[in-house]
Amino acid sequence: MVELGGLLRVEPGGEPVDLSAYDPRGTPGGPGGKKKGLAEIERLRPRLAALQEKLFAQSAVGGDPRRLLLVLQGMDTSGKGGTVKHVVAGLNPVGLRVRAFKAPTEEELRHNFLWRVRKALPQPGEIGVFDRSHYEDVLIARVHDLVPEATWSRRYAEINRFERGLAEDGVTVLKVFLHISPEEQRARLLARLDRPGKHWKFSPTDVEDRARWPDYQQAYEAVLERCSTQEAPWYVVPADRKWYRNWAISRLLLEHLERIGPEYPEPGFDPEKYRRLLLAL
Amino acid sequence: MVELGGLLRVEPGGEPVDLSAYDPRGTPGGPGGKKKGLAEIERLRPRLAALQEKLFAQSAVGGDPRRLLLVLQGMDTSGKGGTVKHVVAGLNPVGLRVRAFKAPTEEELRHNFLWRVRKALPQPGEIGVFDRSHYEDVLIARVHDLVPEATWSRRYAEINRFERGLAEDGVTVLKVFLHISPEEQRARLLARLDRPGKHWKFSPTDVEDRARWPDYQQAYEAVLERCSTQEAPWYVVPADRKWYRNWAISRLLLEHLERIGPEYPEPGFDPEKYRRLLLAL
Repeated sequence: MVELGGLLRVEPGGEPVDLSAYDPRGTPGGPGGKKKGLAEIERLRPRLAALQEKLFAQSAVGGDPRRLLLVLQGMDTSGKGGTVKHVVAGLNPVGLRVRAFKAPTEEELRHNFLWRVRKALPQPGEIGVFDRSHYEDVLIARVHDLVPEATWSRRYAEINRFERGLAEDGVTVLKVFLHISPEEQRARLLARLDRPGKHWKFSPTDVEDRARWPDYQQAYEAVLERCSTQEAPWYVVPADRKWYRNWAISRLLLEHLERIGPEYPEPGFDPEKYRRLLLAL
Repeated sequence: MVELGGLLRVEPGGEPVDLSAYDPRGTPGGPGGKKKGLAEIERLRPRLAALQEKLFAQSAVGGDPRRLLLVLQGMDTSGKGGTVKHVVAGLNPVGLRVRAFKAPTEEELRHNFLWRVRKALPQPGEIGVFDRSHYEDVLIARVHDLVPEATWSRRYAEINRFERGLAEDGVTVLKVFLHISPEEQRARLLARLDRPGKHWKFSPTDVEDRARWPDYQQAYEAVLERCSTQEAPWYVVPADRKWYRNWAISRLLLEHLERIGPEYPEPGFDPEKYRRLLLAL
């Protein structure tokens, strides 16, 4: 794990990852407290929006294939949906493609696990967001023995090949593990039970999954160790503090969009000619 | 045309529509000026977000099929994209499906004109937005003779059948024609030519279409006359003033969501039981 601008990136190469070494309440690289964090998030919004517009424009007019895919993974209540609602919501919906993956349908189960993922990918110029993803097929599938070990163990390499292909197609893949503590999860699940308007976010399976916490942490560590690649590294974002989570993901989005470096396309027409035409029309 | 809460709705039944009778700078039913309009839009945002969350929840958990589709049509610069950016952007992206339709691809042309539209429909619980739509197939297709009259003239009835089917599937269809004046369009096109950061929004075909203004108004009148049905009526929103346009569409979204009347689903579990389990776990 290295700190890049304070953010935790899992180095490609398969080094062992021990999640217990990272404090879910931590704020590595943070802007110094909640108040500054919230202000910084607001300061980042227009910069993100400006980059998104250029990304969209260079594809819509210039045919540029590049796009961004943000993959959000983490235990229940770790803030995947909250990130979409509070960070992604600032972007222009026309260039956004958000997909929340649930348990696969019968039709999806008849295909390879990547089938439904391919259909949900961002198109050129778009920002895509996955709330859960193909990684569930080596997480819940592994912890709950939904498929034999021989099947899920092959998937890590298949995922790496898939994501390498995405990179070749111009997709910048930004993968974030939202690292929450069991204590914070308990508090958030209890809050969902306490408020009728939040009951719909609660499922009895959340409690079953919680009972398998160590198995899930182990499954996440395997993902981080095996699927952090040069083309698509994993980031670990401590997520007990919502403001830090939102700040960190805003920062990561900004850095990755800046790395793409989108630019407005050159006009394929003479503006002066059309100005004259319009003034006459 | 009737005024409902001041908003212009085309009555089903095929009465003649004369767009020149409606002032594009008008603010029918408006809240009384720009300042009040902007304040009112902000006041509506949390109400829209709350209704959207219930719509999403009752489908995600309760299996309710209902959803909303906002169809935006209008001349270039009439504010279809602006509506998405300034009104729709306030909603939670996870329950949103926005699609901007361009000239059909070769693959799309090999299918019936409704093929690509069906693929872009909102799923249960979602709010869908079409920036342009199947109506282009009786607008640009008619004005520019892209297909024979025998073809486009059959499409009005086909569209009505299609939208009746949507209503039966639980889709509330809200269709808005953004009514802009040629003078305002000239100003907006000139603004796009003046600023390099806006060049990408300009296309030489915008000027060609502008030269066919009367033909387009006639084609829009035919749409409003023939395709305003009980299940899916058309609304005419004067769009020269952006604040009014945003206010009117916020109001329309609110009214249509309230008509659906979404409610949080009943929990399929005993909250008290899980509260005890969690406190022990």
